[in-house]
Amino acid sequence: MLQPSQRGLALPPSPYRRLTPYAEAARQRGLTVHPLNIGQPDIETPPAMLAAVQQADIRVLEYGPTAGTLSYRRKLADYYQRLGLSVTYEDVIVTTGGSESISFALLACLNPGDEFIVPEPFYGPYTAFAVSTGTHVVPVASHLEQDFALPPIEEFERKITPRTKAILICSPNNPTGYVYSRQELEQLKDLCLRHNLYLLSDEAYREFCYDGEFTSALHLEGVDEHVVLIDTISKRYSACGARIGALVTKNKSLRDVVFKLAQLRVCPPGLGQLLAEAAADLPEDYFDHTKAEYQARRDLMVRRLRAMPGVRCPLPRGAFYVLCHLPVDDAERFAQWLLEEFQHNGQTLMVSPAAGFYATSILGRQQMRMAYVVNQDVINKAMDCLEVALQQYPGREE
Amino acid sequence: MLQPSQRGLALPPSPYRRLTPYAEAARQRGLTVHPLNIGQPDIETPPAMLAAVQQADIRVLEYGPTAGTLSYRRKLADYYQRLGLSVTYEDVIVTTGGSESISFALLACLNPGDEFIVPEPFYGPYTAFAVSTGTHVVPVASHLEQDFALPPIEEFERKITPRTKAILICSPNNPTGYVYSRQELEQLKDLCLRHNLYLLSDEAYREFCYDGEFTSALHLEGVDEHVVLIDTISKRYSACGARIGALVTKNKSLRDVVFKLAQLRVCPPGLGQLLAEAAADLPEDYFDHTKAEYQARRDLMVRRLRAMPGVRCPLPRGAFYVLCHLPVDDAERFAQWLLEEFQHNGQTLMVSPAAGFYATSILGRQQMRMAYVVNQDVINKAMDCLEVALQQYPGREE
Repeated sequence: MLQPSQRGLALPPSPYRRLTPYAEAARQRGLTVHPLNIGQPDIETPPAMLAAVQQADIRVLEYGPTAGTLSYRRKLADYYQRLGLSVTYEDVIVTTGGSESISFALLACLNPGDEFIVPEPFYGPYTAFAVSTGTHVVPVASHLEQDFALPPIEEFERKITPRTKAILICSPNNPTGYVYSRQELEQLKDLCLRHNLYLLSDEAYREFCYDGEFTSALHLEGVDEHVVLIDTISKRYSACGARIGALVTKNKSLRDVVFKLAQLRVCPPGLGQLLAEAAADLPEDYFDHTKAEYQARRDLMVRRLRAMPGVRCPLPRGAFYVLCHLPVDDAERFAQWLLEEFQHNGQTLMVSPAAGFYATSILGRQQMRMAYVVNQDVINKAMDCLEVALQQYPGREE
Repeated sequence: MLQPSQRGLALPPSPYRRLTPYAEAARQRGLTVHPLNIGQPDIETPPAMLAAVQQADIRVLEYGPTAGTLSYRRKLADYYQRLGLSVTYEDVIVTTGGSESISFALLACLNPGDEFIVPEPFYGPYTAFAVSTGTHVVPVASHLEQDFALPPIEEFERKITPRTKAILICSPNNPTGYVYSRQELEQLKDLCLRHNLYLLSDEAYREFCYDGEFTSALHLEGVDEHVVLIDTISKRYSACGARIGALVTKNKSLRDVVFKLAQLRVCPPGLGQLLAEAAADLPEDYFDHTKAEYQARRDLMVRRLRAMPGVRCPLPRGAFYVLCHLPVDDAERFAQWLLEEFQHNGQTLMVSPAAGFYATSILGRQQMRMAYVVNQDVINKAMDCLEVALQQYPGREE
């Protein structure tokens, strides 16, 4: 019998997909299912960015440069410089989405069998990235009671082995919405310097911080050789389908390796790069509108959640997710029940049970993630449903 | 010291790039450098395909489905069916270029340490794909004197070990232009059935066969579980920059694994898929024009090469490359000399020394590849240069 590879069979399926058939069935029964489960923004892609593609004069859609077009890399460097990061175009390799940037970082920094430490809960697919690159996720638990702040640095230290090669963080965090402070990042920096580790920093949600400043790993000083920035335009400009990201590092020898990996796919998508490059021409206050909208949604969702008995909800200071505690026996079972057995005025909601964001299976059993990527009217309707559902759910547990 | 991973350091750089700085220097000295070194077609991307993107009504450029949009997968299945392949949309996973399809195939079929056998010379980056997926290329030599036909099947058989999991072929072949016959494919099929191997078939140049029929690995009967088709629109529609390819297999369990790999990057590029989908609306005779143009170029280049003393040139029956024997000591040295020390009426040419297409380093030392992706006027000028260069080159060797 011809079998797929063991590593292929070992790949976990996306934690986001398990409930999809139940949602489809609910819709077929005529229910409105409010989709709070995925991070697909409803904010429109800036028309000026789409216009840049649609008005481009293209005769042959040729291969582009492996590291991305020079003009786009320069504009990205300008963007980083405006954030106070000393990045030049040479530090930037344009990737096919943030996902390719994650793959490149793991392949370039870690050998098969090596480990990277991640605060959990974390972006679920990191586990599958580890399997596909032959590496291992080592989780350190952060806690809802502490708003999912960075766990004590001693807990990272305790997990370090001779195979540990990197710390991977995501800030603002998916799924928790936590934004690491300057002080927390300085602790990580010291740790990476002390143990000679890479600091991989996934900053996909950088522009969405609602309270206080954002600190990038590239803001840290004296750690240039260690920092690898993972970036994407997907959330920033509501352009998930363009598949344009970036890997940024001041470490030249690492960049040379990433460049060789990038040569394998010749170049990132050409049309998407045209779109991304046009972001440089957006008005300076572009993010203000988007941020104000997300912040209003966040405030609404958190206010509604906190008014529900037994629900505990930290204030997420960035990204567009809420990770909250529910008074239920099992969030996975509750999420499925919402789709299979519940309705309120012909409506229900789809959420992400938090188990998919934890490597340690006992954690997060009573937690779920919701994305506020729908408008306030829909958020209110979804919260109405949730409020009633928590009263009716047979598995309620304080 | 913080080092990149061993696998990263072990990655070979692209064989196509080594000569680039010399070409740039030659251009800076004012020379015209005819680029016969890469497979970037000069044929225009069909305007109707570009128009499909440019006229699309897009409000939010959202994530698409992981396996590609249903509409595009259906149209691709229609395309394959017109070729006589019994492919349904369910067998198709749209990928980010042919390169992602190669990566997925190797990750899904082979474990780290496993081997795949490839007739050499072969598409250079296969070696780096092997390194990045932790697998090994095992070459079987094909020979210029036999027009690079499939080596005797016994030579494949001799290379099979317990770690062999697949045979990888490319037909029409890059770099040789050879098109495997039905009979040769039947031999490979029997081999794969006998030894329980996958047959990975890279058919990027399928539409460019100038003499006789093309047989796809998916035309073979009774071997559905074994065949994985690697495809791309890059060459077919002169749309290399779109980064749209496909992995096609009737093997359901393998497809499930590929789907999990594909989930990591969420979806293939959205704009590129719109472009690719519009290929279905091209007139039926679209390939006739392109093929006629390539065939005329091939005939011209081969005629010119065969008129040069000491040059031996098989007739490539497909793709758009010529791999020929030169009367030189070392094609690598000759290619560099062309750029550094030679000129003819202010012109020279850039070629690909064949060493980059061989895993066995002693082979191909006197061979080079040229792509006929420039017009006939340029081909004539480049051949004029080559003719004179071969007379002047100090390292001439019969």
